[in-house]
Amino acid sequence: MPENISFARRFDGITGSAIREIFKLIAQPNMISFAGGNPSPSALPDETVARVAAEVLRDDGKRILQYGATEGYPPFLESLRAYVTESLGCEVPSVLPVTGSTQAMDLLCKALIDPGDAILVENPSFLGNLQCMKLYQARLVPVESDEEGLLPDELEAAMRQEKPKLLYVIPNFQNPTGRTTSLARRKKIAELAAKYGVVVAEDDPYRDLRYRGEALPAIKTFDKDGWVVFLGSFSKIISPGMRMGFMAGDAGILRKCTLGKQSADLHTANLTQAIVDRLLREGFLPGHIQRIRADYANQLDAMLKELESFPSGVRYTRPEGGLFLWVELPQGIDARQLLQNAIERKVAFVPGTHFYALGGHENTLRLNFSNSTLAQIHTGMTALRELLEAELH
Amino acid sequence: MPENISFARRFDGITGSAIREIFKLIAQPNMISFAGGNPSPSALPDETVARVAAEVLRDDGKRILQYGATEGYPPFLESLRAYVTESLGCEVPSVLPVTGSTQAMDLLCKALIDPGDAILVENPSFLGNLQCMKLYQARLVPVESDEEGLLPDELEAAMRQEKPKLLYVIPNFQNPTGRTTSLARRKKIAELAAKYGVVVAEDDPYRDLRYRGEALPAIKTFDKDGWVVFLGSFSKIISPGMRMGFMAGDAGILRKCTLGKQSADLHTANLTQAIVDRLLREGFLPGHIQRIRADYANQLDAMLKELESFPSGVRYTRPEGGLFLWVELPQGIDARQLLQNAIERKVAFVPGTHFYALGGHENTLRLNFSNSTLAQIHTGMTALRELLEAELH
Repeated sequence: MPENISFARRFDGITGSAIREIFKLIAQPNMISFAGGNPSPSALPDETVARVAAEVLRDDGKRILQYGATEGYPPFLESLRAYVTESLGCEVPSVLPVTGSTQAMDLLCKALIDPGDAILVENPSFLGNLQCMKLYQARLVPVESDEEGLLPDELEAAMRQEKPKLLYVIPNFQNPTGRTTSLARRKKIAELAAKYGVVVAEDDPYRDLRYRGEALPAIKTFDKDGWVVFLGSFSKIISPGMRMGFMAGDAGILRKCTLGKQSADLHTANLTQAIVDRLLREGFLPGHIQRIRADYANQLDAMLKELESFPSGVRYTRPEGGLFLWVELPQGIDARQLLQNAIERKVAFVPGTHFYALGGHENTLRLNFSNSTLAQIHTGMTALRELLEAELH
Repeated sequence: MPENISFARRFDGITGSAIREIFKLIAQPNMISFAGGNPSPSALPDETVARVAAEVLRDDGKRILQYGATEGYPPFLESLRAYVTESLGCEVPSVLPVTGSTQAMDLLCKALIDPGDAILVENPSFLGNLQCMKLYQARLVPVESDEEGLLPDELEAAMRQEKPKLLYVIPNFQNPTGRTTSLARRKKIAELAAKYGVVVAEDDPYRDLRYRGEALPAIKTFDKDGWVVFLGSFSKIISPGMRMGFMAGDAGILRKCTLGKQSADLHTANLTQAIVDRLLREGFLPGHIQRIRADYANQLDAMLKELESFPSGVRYTRPEGGLFLWVELPQGIDARQLLQNAIERKVAFVPGTHFYALGGHENTLRLNFSNSTLAQIHTGMTALRELLEAELH
């Protein structure tokens, strides 16, 4: 590195996403990974996408390969709007295709956050987006939840006292806990956001991955004044490697995000937009989602079944959907140490402490079930159970 | 828009890229566009990309559709490194695929720039990246050039006085002027960067589009200590709509950019990386570039020929490559007004004032020749000449 080079202050204390680093650690053959949030390989429609990619390039290749508008590939804007309207059950004023919903969070912070501004976050929350907020030098203010989601009194107190610009919430099958925010709490979040003038980033990538229970309306559907921005993703229902997500919400807020996107990547690749557009128009998603859901439900149930035989004192969530469940070990056990031992047994997960804005909670961990076969789940969970039993003796 | 919403200060005074706005203005049938920097439709290899997209998805679809590493799609890292080594004629310590070289500039600013930090820029320079720097609240310091590039004494004085973090320079067929930095000046830039500890962003998207004269070594080749980061792009030689670019340089600087990219878009779409990878491995580029070059050289010559009959007092550059030439009108003529009149005659270009960090220079304009046929160049330039003649009478 050049001598005496000095980097921007936003990187002070930033060491990179723990998940990304764990991924490098576990990139070895025969590793059973409960880390990450990877879809199952069998859920990735490679043959369909191969066909569709060639088709869209043959039909509209000159436009797809040319510069596009920052606002999006025109046919996709049309099908995306129809998809969002149907999925949310409400009209949205504006949509913006983005390069994965990771970019949506980045653009929203870019639009709203000056250094020192407060952002309210669930505790724990998705670490990738926590890092994004830290790079905008936001002040992260965790708000506690129970089984139904954010605690209304704590949320209101934080809004009143901290004057946050943004509330970041994952209402369905939350990452990392797997918990779902109740209907009453969704209404309350929309109401408080309007009352205190706080933009809500409603991050909902797992929406379609519900295995039991009834779908709940998005927070966005209770939003009268445009405070809620819905962040959607095709990563979990088509392909994460394609980096296709979207924002839906107030046109003025999305206009700022569009300006921010101009100099972030000019526009999202037309090809990936065109592929998702074609899949939406072909009606690919409903059947595909149904197949994925059936598999993932089995994988979740298998993992829950394994947890039943874990030592007493181990608590865990029972998600109705999504990709993750959350485990609390007895106090005093450090999941980071457990991970070191687990990796020797070729099993990986993410220690929970990384999901807490202020750290701590070393006795927690996140397990992903979507990227492992039933056999791997049995083998991997057995190893974790044995390690824990040894630890507790 | 929600009442009383307040956006981040970085957006103060940001109104969006003038080019992007002009594009909306001119999105009507039969418009002859000398605005933008669009490749010719005939230069976009839609059939080849259709074939290659299907092939890579059939060969490696599961990996392509799955989450990838922020560092890049592994096969592409290999072919990209070979391409960069051959293209620059020197080894580079590290490469990072990015979502268009627009993202490269964004990541470099993210890594280096705190609000108020100085960035030295050519005057004029590429407006898209000027906007990027403004969004990082950098202090833009223009440095004057002559026909050979940045003036060494002015550059050194600016480095000494302004203590910039970054110098942004486009050495080949500069955007917007079409000028090329001489060999001596390239060496001098590398030398001064090391002496004063300034990172150089060497933006070189037009490198392969040389129509006459001899190729000059990149500034990067004179860099001993890692101060020069090379920004490359496949937009002009494969497809801008695919958003594939790269950074090449010091591993420590690129590591910070990689951390920044984690929360910008996690990684560039694997599919677009895999397509470019396959094209590089197939040896597609040399022949393709040769074909493009022959066409663009004719288009450039046609535009230069038209300019010969423009009123005296109109000065223009004679680029050896790239996509643009630069016109200075007699003092007192405002190119923005000329644009209004030109649009009525169905001709568009970009007024030069937008390319100056501090504005002014209203009598300048940028012309693109790559996206127009010879007939369109004749018709469009005739209209511009007539409008100017009328103006000067």
